[in-house]
Order: sequence, then C-alpha cells, then structure tokens
Amino acid sequence: MASNLQQLLDQSGNVVDLLRNSQLGAYIYPVVPAEFTNWRREQRAWRETAVLFDQSHHMFNLFLRGPDALRLVSETGVNSVASFPVDRAKQFVPTTPAGHVIGDGILFHEEEDAYVFVGRAPVANWLQFQAETGGYDVEVIKDERSPSRPYGKAVSRRYWRLQIQGPRAWEVIEKVNGGPLEQLRFFHMSWMQVAGERVRTLRHGMAGAPGLELWGPYDSYEKVRNAILEAGAEFGLEPCGSRAYASNTLESGWIPSPLPAIYTGEALRPYREWLGVDSYEATNSLAGSFVSADIEDYYLNPWELGYGSFVKFDHDFIGREALERVDGAAQRKKVTLAWNAEDVARIFASMLDPDDEGYQVFDVPIANYGSSNYDAVVDADDTVVGLSMFSGYSANEKRALSLATVDAGVPLGTELRVIWGEPGGGSRKPTVQPHRQIEVRAVVSPVPYSVTARREYHGGWRTAAGV
Amino acid sequence: MASNLQQLLDQSGNVVDLLRNSQLGAYIYPVVPAEFTNWRREQRAWRETAVLFDQSHHMFNLFLRGPDALRLVSETGVNSVASFPVDRAKQFVPTTPAGHVIGDGILFHEEEDAYVFVGRAPVANWLQFQAETGGYDVEVIKDERSPSRPYGKAVSRRYWRLQIQGPRAWEVIEKVNGGPLEQLRFFHMSWMQVAGERVRTLRHGMAGAPGLELWGPYDSYEKVRNAILEAGAEFGLEPCGSRAYASNTLESGWIPSPLPAIYTGEALRPYREWLGVDSYEATNSLAGSFVSADIEDYYLNPWELGYGSFVKFDHDFIGREALERVDGAAQRKKVTLAWNAEDVARIFASMLDPDDEGYQVFDVPIANYGSSNYDAVVDADDTVVGLSMFSGYSANEKRALSLATVDAGVPLGTELRVIWGEPGGGSRKPTVQPHRQIEVRAVVSPVPYSVTARREYHGGWRTAAGV
Repeated sequence: MASNLQQLLDQSGNVVDLLRNSQLGAYIYPVVPAEFTNWRREQRAWRETAVLFDQSHHMFNLFLRGPDALRLVSETGVNSVASFPVDRAKQFVPTTPAGHVIGDGILFHEEEDAYVFVGRAPVANWLQFQAETGGYDVEVIKDERSPSRPYGKAVSRRYWRLQIQGPRAWEVIEKVNGGPLEQLRFFHMSWMQVAGERVRTLRHGMAGAPGLELWGPYDSYEKVRNAILEAGAEFGLEPCGSRAYASNTLESGWIPSPLPAIYTGEALRPYREWLGVDSYEATNSLAGSFVSADIEDYYLNPWELGYGSFVKFDHDFIGREALERVDGAAQRKKVTLAWNAEDVARIFASMLDPDDEGYQVFDVPIANYGSSNYDAVVDADDTVVGLSMFSGYSANEKRALSLATVDAGVPLGTELRVIWGEPGGGSRKPTVQPHRQIEVRAVVSPVPYSVTARREYHGGWRTAAGV
Repeated sequence: MASNLQQLLDQSGNVVDLLRNSQLGAYIYPVVPAEFTNWRREQRAWRETAVLFDQSHHMFNLFLRGPDALRLVSETGVNSVASFPVDRAKQFVPTTPAGHVIGDGILFHEEEDAYVFVGRAPVANWLQFQAETGGYDVEVIKDERSPSRPYGKAVSRRYWRLQIQGPRAWEVIEKVNGGPLEQLRFFHMSWMQVAGERVRTLRHGMAGAPGLELWGPYDSYEKVRNAILEAGAEFGLEPCGSRAYASNTLESGWIPSPLPAIYTGEALRPYREWLGVDSYEATNSLAGSFVSADIEDYYLNPWELGYGSFVKFDHDFIGREALERVDGAAQRKKVTLAWNAEDVARIFASMLDPDDEGYQVFDVPIANYGSSNYDAVVDADDTVVGLSMFSGYSANEKRALSLATVDAGVPLGTELRVIWGEPGGGSRKPTVQPHRQIEVRAVVSPVPYSVTARREYHGGWRTAAGV
C-alpha cells in the first residue's frame, strides 16, 4: 500500500495511465447552488448588468505569516517581489527546477509579514512543503476547499470570498458601501462597508469594467451576501451558480487547470514523498484527447500559459536557471478557440442516435471532464500544434469556446481542429462513457475573447499579427 | 400584503399568470450530489446492473397517528382501504370535490393507527388541513423536504430513504442482509438487516426486477448508505445523483408533477385561506407551451394520470360524486412520447446560432423548467389532443422522452407534435430565457417505455390497440 505519491508512482507504472484513469470524477465547484435562475441568464448578467460570484468554497486558502514569508514567496515564484507592499496582490506562479508551472493563484499581502495564497491545491501544497523543509521562519495555516459532496453536512471555511463584477458592478458596490469608493488600480487592496461590516477588497474587473473581490470571516457570509444581493437587485445583479461560474473564464481567458509539473525529476522526489496518496497531485484526473506516454509532454512553462510577463530575473527562485534559457517569443501562446457550430451540433446530436455509441458528451456550459484537461489541437497536416485546456459554452457568444496554448507561429484567424474525446473508446475515468472521437473545427481567436475579437473575426484575421 | 393563498389569488388577477410567472425557479432535487460518476452511467446502472436512489431529501413526510387516521385516509383518497393492514403501502390519490387530482404519493401503514405519507407537498398539505378541520382524532407531524439550496448549512430529516433497484438489486439486497430475504408482493412492507441495523423495507421494483425501498432514522443514514454501496460494488451498483434521479421516471412512467387542482371552487376557499403565501400551491411554477386563461384546464382526473384503477366506490371520499359521473374509458390516458431525434437535435443546435434567439433549452437528462409542466401536444390538424408533463432524455434509449396524457382515441404509434417552449417569447419565470417555440414530432408509445414497446415501435404500431 503506497503511503505517498512517490510510492504510488513507483507501484503504478506509468503516471499518465494513473492520472488518465483517476477515479476522482469531475472537478466540482462545491456548495454553491448549481443555478439560482438559469445558467444562461447568469452568464448574461456578467456581460450586461452585474453578477455576484461566490468563490468561498472551491479554492484552497494558505495563510503564511512570519519574518520569512516574503522570502518564501520570492524564492518560489517567478514573480518579482521588488514592489509588493501590504494591500497589494499578485498572480503568483511557482515553477519547478525545470521551469515548468506548478500552478497559479492569487497571493494577497494582507498585513506586514502576512500573506494568503488562494487557488488550487498544487501551489498551496508546494508552498507548504517549501515552508516546512526550506528553513523558513514562517507559520503556515491550511484552509482546504469545501468538500465536493457535503451531502447535507455543515460546511465551514475561514473566509467567505465574493466578487461583484460586470458593467454595473461599481454602482452596486457604491450603493452597498453607502457612498463613493475610490477605484484603485488593478490588484490593489482596500476596504469597504457592507451591512455594517468593514470588509476587505481587491480591485478586480472584467472586460474593462471595474469590479471588486471581497472577503471576510465566514460567520458574516450570509449577512454580507444578502446585503449585496438586496442592493444589487435594482442594477440587475444576479447571483451566479456553480454551473455557470467556471464558464466565465472562457470569456476572460484564465486557464485554471494546468497539470502540476511535479511527477518527474530527482530534485522533486522529496516533494513527492511528502505528498500524500489522497493529495490533489495523486488523485488528479487527466482528461482529453492528447495522450502521451511521457507525462512531461503535459508540462507547461509560464509563456505557454500567458504568464511570460510575470517572469522577472530580479530575484533568485526555483526554476530561474531553466527559465533564463527559454526564448519567450518562441513558446506556445495562449489563445481562445472558437469552435465550429456545425461540428459541435454533431456532438450534441450524437446523443440521439441509438445505433451509434456517440461522442463524449459536451456538457454545457462546462464541458471539461477532468481536473486537468488536455485536448489535442491539430493543423491541416494533422500535426499537433497546441493543447486545448478548458472547454465550454458561452450564451453571450452563443458559441462553444476553449482556452488553448498553440504554437507561436499560428496566426489569429487560423482554422485548426480540436480532437474531442479520448482515443480507444475512452479511459476508465468515471466521467467517461465509451465513445468515438470527433474533430471539431476551431478558429484561433484572441484571449480574452472580446467584442473586438469577434468583430475582427467576421472581417477575417488571417493576416493579423499574433496574440 | 396577502397572508394566504386566497388573498394572493384575489389580488393577483389571473392565477395562471401568477403561476406561469412564479419566481420560484426550477424544481430542485436537493442535497444529493448532482453526479457521482456521470448521469449517463448512472442511468445505465438502473437498466443494466443496480442503482442506489437517494430519496431522503426531495419529498415531504407527513406522519399521521391516532384512532381516526384510517378514516382520514379513507375519506380523502380515491383508494379503497378495505384491505390496508399494517406493513402495506398504497399509492394514495386524493381528489377535490370536483374529482380533480390534488397529487399523489406513497402512504405507508407503519404501525397500528400510524401512517406516513411520502410525496410532494400538495397532498401533505391537504391531509394536514383535513386532519385539523375535519374533526379527526389524529396527530399530524410534518417533516418538510430539505431546503433546495442548503448552501453549506447542515440538513436533517426524520428519515433517510433509499431504494435499491435494477436487475442485480436483489443480489445486492441479500448480500447486505447477510442472507436470503423473502420477495414479498409489490408494496408489501417488511424488515432487513443493514450494517447491524434492523431497517424497514417496501417491496418495489423496476422493469420487472425486484427491488426495495428502505428507510430508517436519519442518524443511521451514512452508515446504511455506505454499507449498501460497499456491498453493491461487486454487482455494479452505482449511487444515482440528483441530475439522473428524476429522469428514471421517463422510463418507469410515473408523472410526478400534476398541478394541484385547488385554485378554484367555493368549497375549497377555506383550504386556500389556510394555505400560506409561501406554500407549494402559492409559489408553484407552471411551465410549458400549454396556456389557458382558465386554470381548470390544467386540472386532471385520476384516469388521465393512469390512476383510474385506484378509484374505488366502496367508500365515501371527497370527490366521489364527481368521479362516479366520469366515464373512465373516455378519458385521456397516460402514454410515453418518443421525441423525434432530428427535431430535438434542432433544439440543441439552436444554442449555437448567434443570429437566432433560439429555443427554450432542453436540458439533459431533465428538461422540465417548472414544478408543474404542461406542453401542448397537437395532432395533424393542430388540435390539442394531450398534455406533455415531464420531459427529458434517457441514455438507455438514446432518446428524448416525455410522459403525457392524450385523448383516449389516439392509438399507439401515432405521430403527434409536442410544442416546446412558451408562447410570446416566454414567461417571466427565472428558468426561461427569451425564445421561439418549436414543434417536435413525437410517437405515442406505451408507458412504461419498455423494451417490448421499442421493438414494436420499429415494426410499426399504427394498427395496435390503445394503451
């Protein structure tokens, strides 16, 4: 019986097989109701009026406090900490010694020597491991995500975490606050008033419209949430359910789910021995048509995920040497893929053919069927020129979209094909039923998939510059 | 401000408008996770291996105890109680004085003078009202359904309630029991052993295969559930999530959601004055293409729902006089409608057309968008010949199906059309986005929609006898 990830890998043969056949099931956004009204209306709200996202349950909080907290952050992240005062946040990206991304998330500088990382487990685990083993004077407190299937049991977190977004978000915010509120710069932190509580804020925004992320102690969750919903009603604010929630990123362009690049390399053996057999890394469900026997083919560097501009060599950090050798301009780049309607309709229609095993279901608005999703993207010569990593449907665009990373030389407007479904009838993941694969035409489009992009698409982009 | 249903009706003008524009939202099957594996696989399990249904949360329990409990049941239900000993259950159907169905559910005779009704709220409310106002010596205890959106708060019921169903269900049951168990007759009650607990059982079954419904005190929920899942694994038992759960009835043929026929009639005024403004009846969401200004056009009698054989004139009951005047053979009859694949595919594809507002979404596997669903079913002359009342998709059949009631003279095999979507762009229900209507061809098929039926369908049924 394996007692850590390394032993599990040693026993299981190929790690790709292990993860592709994970029995974990779908990646779940827990606790928040699936729909408040309906997922199409909730999608429209973030585009047309305002939306209340509830991020209280699906992310890991890792609290770091102590004199070495900043040094820990600096030595693990590609990001510069040259300017990282209190009340500032960063999109934090740690890499392995080989320069591959472990994950990303938001790092909040809440107080002097006190930071909170918010994101998926891989970065939190890595920070905790480094804190414990790297000789840092830092206290670490874990606040793991809520259970995926609480099944009627009470759930609690340290913080609730909400976002008010959309074109009318600021009107909602100022009404809730009871007066004007300064629009700080993006990722600057401040405070506001909600229902008599002084609440922390992070300046955020979507599609150019200013918004805020808010958080506070869990026991004020209901009071704060109700106050925002009540104030927002006149502006068309809608609470967003868990079904629509993650599809937001199809429009805004963040890839939530790269595979943590920690399964290989002798340098990471102690980390794999530290990670449990029930860790995210050990149970992670790898899905999609891209299959390689070599797990390293799933690894991504910061440029491939759109984080090249975060990489700053003004400090020493794990992965620096490897990243210094990378030619950023030659790396794959993040794009949106706009899927062909006719081909997607064929996927939908295959459900209705009793004489055909059909295609892997494309669920709406989120079509992912694993925690880390890798669909092969091929060009006219059937060469794999990219990976499609987060798929779904936008009622705002009336289109299936995915976020992908494609070869640097592929221009906007190129028609590629996403291979949808797994080879050989599919893996043994519980999210997969026996199916055939289908090639779906998809046009390489900007990220985020903005109105401008859509207009240009109609005019044809084939001569346009790269993303 | 209205303080009861009658006042609400008096203030709101037309009750059809009130219910068609209810802001309640979708009818939710709460607490149970949406999917354990995936909804297609969970559907397959009840057809091919075995399934664990969890009915602990979505139904109302009404406990009736006292010397007049049986008299209450007898005087409110169409069912005969001439033979209703302890350890027997009945599908209980109360009607209004006009003979229209209020609802239905299972009435369990648990002990001498002690009954439990399990089902939707309208029957429970009606029984409670009759118990309180009809001069019965009976104690009533309400155990309402779990909240639709518990949002991380702890949930509790008096009972957990599970079903083990499917072709291998009895093997699972006997393994759990630790030895053979007598297969009693349908709807007879007994006991079995689960994980050291003595647990009550109701003989049930699906598609001819024997199964059991089990229940017990809520504090043994997790232990019992885990024991059944563990024992069932070798037989392919799958837990069924809330997303697949209700679609089971598309194959088994029970219509869960008739409109309670209580909105009209002076005789029912005291009942409407007793019902609160937050009652099921006051908030009920009426959905679909069938729209009549007269709420009574939505009412159904027992024959139209397939309960004609339950009506027994061996006792006096509310509605008896009206029902004695009904010619059962002339009433609409319950059927399954097998929807045309090409037309359903058009609904799916309309999501992908940016230049078209599209059709009302047909969500899978449950497409209902209200608590009570009424889609018009028309014949070749565009005459309304029936009502389609519960719609969805079966991965076992690879077909969209609905349960309907159609004119007595319509033979099996007839192709009718279901009008999908609401007129005039749709009501203001939060489950509805602006849409166009579409006519979907559908073949009148037996209920339940059995293998036999499907075989005969391929051969053509147009000359076959009625259901």
